[in-house]
Amino acid sequence: MTKTERTYLDWNATAPLLAAAREAVVAALDMVGNPSSVHGEGRALRMLVEAARRDIAALVNAVPAHVIFTSGATEAANLVLTPDYRMGRTPLAIGHLYVSEIEHPAVREGGRFMRENVTTVPVTRAGIVDIEALETLLQGHDKARGLPMVAVMLANNETGIVQPVKAVAEIVRRHGGFVVVDAVQAVGRMPVDIEALDADFLIISSHKLGGPKGAGALVSRGEVLMPAALIRGGGQEKGHRSGTENPAALAGFAAAARAAVAGLVERNARIAGLRDALEAGMRLAANDIVIHGAEGERIANTSFFSLPGLKSETGQIAFDLEGIALSAGSACSSGKVGQSHVLTAMGFDAALGGLRVSLGPGSVQADVDRFLAAFSRVVSRRRLTGSAA
Amino acid sequence: MTKTERTYLDWNATAPLLAAAREAVVAALDMVGNPSSVHGEGRALRMLVEAARRDIAALVNAVPAHVIFTSGATEAANLVLTPDYRMGRTPLAIGHLYVSEIEHPAVREGGRFMRENVTTVPVTRAGIVDIEALETLLQGHDKARGLPMVAVMLANNETGIVQPVKAVAEIVRRHGGFVVVDAVQAVGRMPVDIEALDADFLIISSHKLGGPKGAGALVSRGEVLMPAALIRGGGQEKGHRSGTENPAALAGFAAAARAAVAGLVERNARIAGLRDALEAGMRLAANDIVIHGAEGERIANTSFFSLPGLKSETGQIAFDLEGIALSAGSACSSGKVGQSHVLTAMGFDAALGGLRVSLGPGSVQADVDRFLAAFSRVVSRRRLTGSAA
Repeated sequence: MTKTERTYLDWNATAPLLAAAREAVVAALDMVGNPSSVHGEGRALRMLVEAARRDIAALVNAVPAHVIFTSGATEAANLVLTPDYRMGRTPLAIGHLYVSEIEHPAVREGGRFMRENVTTVPVTRAGIVDIEALETLLQGHDKARGLPMVAVMLANNETGIVQPVKAVAEIVRRHGGFVVVDAVQAVGRMPVDIEALDADFLIISSHKLGGPKGAGALVSRGEVLMPAALIRGGGQEKGHRSGTENPAALAGFAAAARAAVAGLVERNARIAGLRDALEAGMRLAANDIVIHGAEGERIANTSFFSLPGLKSETGQIAFDLEGIALSAGSACSSGKVGQSHVLTAMGFDAALGGLRVSLGPGSVQADVDRFLAAFSRVVSRRRLTGSAA
Repeated sequence: MTKTERTYLDWNATAPLLAAAREAVVAALDMVGNPSSVHGEGRALRMLVEAARRDIAALVNAVPAHVIFTSGATEAANLVLTPDYRMGRTPLAIGHLYVSEIEHPAVREGGRFMRENVTTVPVTRAGIVDIEALETLLQGHDKARGLPMVAVMLANNETGIVQPVKAVAEIVRRHGGFVVVDAVQAVGRMPVDIEALDADFLIISSHKLGGPKGAGALVSRGEVLMPAALIRGGGQEKGHRSGTENPAALAGFAAAARAAVAGLVERNARIAGLRDALEAGMRLAANDIVIHGAEGERIANTSFFSLPGLKSETGQIAFDLEGIALSAGSACSSGKVGQSHVLTAMGFDAALGGLRVSLGPGSVQADVDRFLAAFSRVVSRRRLTGSAA
């Protein structure tokens, strides 16, 4: 296999840039000016930013004025996760943050909450946030120290398992708390509606959607309850996020959002078909494979599996040498393969670890075929060398 | 004048994207993957990010390992301006922040310092930070509450006036404090050397340099004294700044940095020539013009002036209608023309305000000619209608 024949199956780490998004980015790069300048150049870029705001709002059924653009989802998470809120002009303290055990590190780190004010909510062995445990935790919440905030993602980045956000919100409402939903892996892969979810805040990302890196958003249900700004300065984004806006990234984000909304059902049916074929092929080649979350509701593009006798690190390198880009869970900052905190949370042997295949709109049957051919070779080597492989 | 004939004289708000930077951005946009992924695609992007880090370090004579990439200068300012530091593993409190009165809002807002722990340092009527006042303030600093931090920009964004950073650093050292330098408007316009300046931290921005928007950096003198992370999550940038890196923006930033270093002296001599011709022409057309800071050291590209009888808002709109993009100071977040806090700090009548012309590597004599033609018309209308013009 030559070096150029690569198969990219790591769309949950980052999606290749969509052609429409690329076009929008490049067109905006060629526009001169600062969107906050009052001259003609500035106003043209301002229009681009505000058009992008409408597209992002439409992606999650929100109001454009409730979209705060950030440099990405991690920044959006750090913006929303703070004890320091305002209800209109009145300071309002959030006393404690409850995050599901399978949240992305951007959320699990707890943003601006002190570590002692962050509690993790366990998940079931099926990889779903434990609703009863959440109820118990909120019953024990001390409101005297401030209201509770609960962060539960809509679709898990490693397993693709869809979380019962609506049910979570119902419990949180009963306890007078606020709901933050990391929808990064969900948008474009399932319908996302901030109203239907009954979420107070959604976190979304451009580059997981086929837009460029460097853009994300915090989308709020209203404008009354708002977090203290994380990045202060010139007062852009109505003071919620200072710093020169990035029209090129936002135009690309918007183009990706428009593409995500169009033909969602058909696209995901096709991707689910590829994923199902891939999983059927893996089961044929290795009947001891464990596919995490396969029995429940998942987004269509993700398959997270463990193979007895194949460590995730070894597996990832083996597939890379076979020309297949996949992941051992979330992209790790250090460039090393870490243990999957999601598998640990689900009660699996994290030392073994898992491998994640994630597909996207550009994935085709030939990708599945190449993956399965590589899978057979990797699996056969595993069998030859046993658990040390 | 047709709509397409525009003259862009607002390089301090944002510089048009350099061809080399555009090429680097587009090439990186076409690379698939996440720089934190361990597969081949990820590693190729990691190399791009690390190459960019070397270019940015070279721009300011720093060590690549001391460059923390951010989404822009405002984020970098909010990262560095915090009372919460570590000296190695030992927490170290910064007790008070002193910022010059003419700092950019990204610095003047004080980042994560509480407002009562931020003191502004006055400037002289010449627009230069008042060294004696700083000395007096630091003599009164209460070290029991933590060490002092002083933020003074290298070149002012509105006037272009160069600040005596080295002298500031000498005073701050004597008081055991730390020096933060906003070098956003200085890089590419004068030599910037973190060692020669004796600064602890430099803040720089891509888009003021001809790179794309969406990238900036906090450059530190060492790795021992470091601020608490502003954006936490996956642990990118050695934990100092989490969130997926933006290789396209960083590659463009790096290309702009390389271009900024090359031929700096010749480029600025040419730009200074244009600026001097522009100012001579303005003085001829309006002998009552006040050009702020013209008597002292300025970066070569900036001219900030006040015209009796012409409000900055009126002037900016008049020039825009003439096809000239210039600014009334810094780009204002709301798209409105605010009063210049820099003029106020210098003791001028801020209600009148000023107008800023800022040039760049792409500026040519024809830009100056078109500006001066428009200037004559604007000035003549001012005379006709008096101070209400």
